[in-house]
Amino acid sequence: MIEQRRVAVWRDGAAVPVPADQPVVTAFDLGLARGDGVFESVAVLGRRTPHLDAHLARLVRSADLLGLADPGATAWRALVATALAGWPTDVEGVCRLVLTRGLGEGTPPTALALLAPVPAETVRQRTEGIAVVTLGLGVPADFRAGAPWLLGGAKTLSYAVNMAAQRHAHALGADDVVLTSLEGRVLEGPTSTVVWAAAGTLHTPPVETGILAGTTQARLFAAARAAGWPTASTPGTVEDLHAADAVWLVSGVRGAVAVHTLDGVRRGDAGLSPRVGELLAG
Amino acid sequence: MIEQRRVAVWRDGAAVPVPADQPVVTAFDLGLARGDGVFESVAVLGRRTPHLDAHLARLVRSADLLGLADPGATAWRALVATALAGWPTDVEGVCRLVLTRGLGEGTPPTALALLAPVPAETVRQRTEGIAVVTLGLGVPADFRAGAPWLLGGAKTLSYAVNMAAQRHAHALGADDVVLTSLEGRVLEGPTSTVVWAAAGTLHTPPVETGILAGTTQARLFAAARAAGWPTASTPGTVEDLHAADAVWLVSGVRGAVAVHTLDGVRRGDAGLSPRVGELLAG
Repeated sequence: MIEQRRVAVWRDGAAVPVPADQPVVTAFDLGLARGDGVFESVAVLGRRTPHLDAHLARLVRSADLLGLADPGATAWRALVATALAGWPTDVEGVCRLVLTRGLGEGTPPTALALLAPVPAETVRQRTEGIAVVTLGLGVPADFRAGAPWLLGGAKTLSYAVNMAAQRHAHALGADDVVLTSLEGRVLEGPTSTVVWAAAGTLHTPPVETGILAGTTQARLFAAARAAGWPTASTPGTVEDLHAADAVWLVSGVRGAVAVHTLDGVRRGDAGLSPRVGELLAG
Repeated sequence: MIEQRRVAVWRDGAAVPVPADQPVVTAFDLGLARGDGVFESVAVLGRRTPHLDAHLARLVRSADLLGLADPGATAWRALVATALAGWPTDVEGVCRLVLTRGLGEGTPPTALALLAPVPAETVRQRTEGIAVVTLGLGVPADFRAGAPWLLGGAKTLSYAVNMAAQRHAHALGADDVVLTSLEGRVLEGPTSTVVWAAAGTLHTPPVETGILAGTTQARLFAAARAAGWPTASTPGTVEDLHAADAVWLVSGVRGAVAVHTLDGVRRGDAGLSPRVGELLAG
């Protein structure tokens, strides 16, 4: 699969293609040694990135929360275009944008675009749905809003806990995770936004909890409202998810995947998943 | 300063020296994209690493908590020796060991040793002491013991929050941070262990809170006990720190630095810092 991977690096004001198996980051880069940077994962369809703007906007917000210099939209577009050059139009891809603090204050940031095919497991989850377990983050839902050093709302490279939570789920026989606050309120997935349908409305947790603002969730909600399906930012509990008509984990590359099992309890989607899929494809 | 930096990489079963400005990590390495890895910072004195064993032991524990393959002590010693070759004996250094998940399951981990001089700011803090602010982590002190997915006790590459907490302290005019639990219990510094002297005893918070087990704090406590100074693992509050005879942030490279200001309140060290310094030098 490595030959299907692409990398583009920002060097001296230009996007430079680099073989994927060639090292591009130095050992002292703070993105490596400290996870001190931000990223975005952008869906690639037909060699295009239809939702790049929303990801670039969030990348700027994440960088701002970390006090990181951002190379700007022109640089990112050049990196994406370089990574995508010659990419087969029939291979769905995920383009990851990575921005690090470089070697530290007074040095240029490191900016990369990575491109790879969408994993087979992601494709499987779209059609089959997923089993999810809830895992506590241990933080009250209102804590991060007043604690900017916790970097709530920033999509940082420091995803070790996100990855550990998913490994923990796998060890329990589940596919993914819904993280919860100390009070048991629904927060987010390690790499996704939680959306549920209840009482004729689409719900997602408030961003004031410190979760990431979902680009795909925002697009879904805009399309839903345009189609007459009300949406709401709702503080929900795990019980609310159990009682909901449908629950999805939503992200840019995977789309909206239906949760068919929550903490070991089978659940349905009230036939709503096709409608959600159409709104996202819209 | 870059010419004084050294890097050694583990390749095909051997430690290979690499120029510090030469890229060594590929874009898809999970250490970069996900902060999915662990590290140690080891003091270098007279071209030697007298406390390497304790750091290697902790690296193994961290790797185990992340389910990471560890290349083993022989590999790490070879990496350290390669990085140290020809290093001037009169330049105090910090040798960082970095281990990542590589390209993911079924691929070899990435293992590096990085060597650089101790920063001038670190040297200044040893003699002048530091101003510290307390910042909340938002998690109850007993939560992480029952939540292994939060990776309590593991020294991961996902240090974005640790770095953000220190930047927040700098913005407040302070040098460093003591992180606190939701209840206001003392946890640890972003890159150090908290130690305080009170009632004739040296105290440090219990590792059951999910903090990192301090290698230097452990060495200090062993030396203190041998010298007849009692030590204790004590759940302490910020008020306990204010009331203490002395407070230090302790780490391998910086040593024990005295806290001269806590949350804006000046404080002394009861003349105990020289004794602590001697025990660590012992």
